[in-house]
Amino acid sequence: MTLEQLTNEIHKKKSFLCIGLDVDLDKIPPHLLEKEDPIFEFSKAIIDATHDLCVAYKPNTAFFEAYGVKGWQALQKTINYLNENYPNHFTIADAKRGDIGNTSTRYAKAFFEDLEFDSVTIAPYMGKDSVEPFLQFDNKYAILLALTSNQGAFDFQTKQVDGVPLYQQVLQTASQYDNSDRLMYVVGATKAEFLTDIRKIIPNSFLLVPGVGAQGGSLEDVVKYGKSSNVGLLINSSRGIIYASSNEDFEKAARDKAQQLQFQMANLL
Amino acid sequence: MTLEQLTNEIHKKKSFLCIGLDVDLDKIPPHLLEKEDPIFEFSKAIIDATHDLCVAYKPNTAFFEAYGVKGWQALQKTINYLNENYPNHFTIADAKRGDIGNTSTRYAKAFFEDLEFDSVTIAPYMGKDSVEPFLQFDNKYAILLALTSNQGAFDFQTKQVDGVPLYQQVLQTASQYDNSDRLMYVVGATKAEFLTDIRKIIPNSFLLVPGVGAQGGSLEDVVKYGKSSNVGLLINSSRGIIYASSNEDFEKAARDKAQQLQFQMANLL
Repeated sequence: MTLEQLTNEIHKKKSFLCIGLDVDLDKIPPHLLEKEDPIFEFSKAIIDATHDLCVAYKPNTAFFEAYGVKGWQALQKTINYLNENYPNHFTIADAKRGDIGNTSTRYAKAFFEDLEFDSVTIAPYMGKDSVEPFLQFDNKYAILLALTSNQGAFDFQTKQVDGVPLYQQVLQTASQYDNSDRLMYVVGATKAEFLTDIRKIIPNSFLLVPGVGAQGGSLEDVVKYGKSSNVGLLINSSRGIIYASSNEDFEKAARDKAQQLQFQMANLL
Repeated sequence: MTLEQLTNEIHKKKSFLCIGLDVDLDKIPPHLLEKEDPIFEFSKAIIDATHDLCVAYKPNTAFFEAYGVKGWQALQKTINYLNENYPNHFTIADAKRGDIGNTSTRYAKAFFEDLEFDSVTIAPYMGKDSVEPFLQFDNKYAILLALTSNQGAFDFQTKQVDGVPLYQQVLQTASQYDNSDRLMYVVGATKAEFLTDIRKIIPNSFLLVPGVGAQGGSLEDVVKYGKSSNVGLLINSSRGIIYASSNEDFEKAARDKAQQLQFQMANLL
């Protein structure tokens, strides 16, 4: 998918909502547990109920891996279902990968070629040769952790390095990597006030913004401080949407929550 | 496995060798490709040929994930084979994971409970609440990236943060986390001269040291600067051992390379 196509979808749907698929068998409606593949069935039901309200889906690989081979099969089925039925949605493997060059290349092939995701989240700690292998694929994107939504972000990310916080050093350095036009960045909604500084370094890059909803971030603030001339935002909500109800009405409840966010987004565009 | 058991194995075998299983179907002996599961067959053959010379095996998850569901099945079979046949070997899932708390918990369950590895490598960028979920399991260990063997390590890890390099900040901070006695650290052999400073911060922790062999690190220097009173080292070699030959003699060739390293280690102990 190209960034132009993604931006067109945002304007068409008046939505920059990404729905996170953190599928937890302890939280999904119990009647689905009788199905042969409850992880996939839940994902499929959420996708079918919300697709016209969002522009992206983000399966969280940890939740699939926790179920072993069956989980990986469900991940494969979920991305295949998205690519076959909703090819205009941007797909994100939320995997937080990153390793030395030849290993990063393997991860890139796993997510871009084997699973055919549009993008994958990656960690910056190992630097240039751990990131650039993800930037070698046409119309595929790496979404680099910059400033995350959790409390632990203050352990290292906000510490001063050569006079600027580490997360800004990451943005400055990574934006010089080869093919950095294929980079997006994770910035948590819980730290919306940092977005003004961030936009000075990467004015046009897409940001994936988790932390609205269950983690307490404000959609208005993210848009106020983080919107680029071309929108440039994907706001993720996972638990707040997909676990809105754990009863048989879960699809409608998820749709209602997604609709509320889409309505707010339409007003802010 | 307890750390005491691991240390006993090191003394018994006069070896602190870890063999990395980076299984690449383009590099394994062609006659194995005819087998139903060549990834597992190659891993099994390498393990059988080298088990008495090493104390740990480290499957690199990227190489398995790159083959999708089949790769994940091969990973499951490989760890099961190790646990059933060589229960005294320390097992490392080289996965470089890390995410917000509830997601890190899922990764920990995936590697410690579903796959039953002894340990998993993790990345520090997201801080305390991304690391501590991995430290909640008895006799299970998280191996935190500190100073990696690749060139990209100089992008961020060696930058000064509050007067010390970031990798030292990571060691100082992480060694204060809850259950930090279950932490080990990755330090690349290509940066052996940094080990003196590292041992001042974490004198007794185990270090997983990649980069001897294909990446050019020196075993002698790692031992000289990094050995603790209790050895405290696991030296990894992957490609230098497992791809010593791509012909039918690959098991003997791998064994010979492992034997050379074990012999050097016995002299250095």
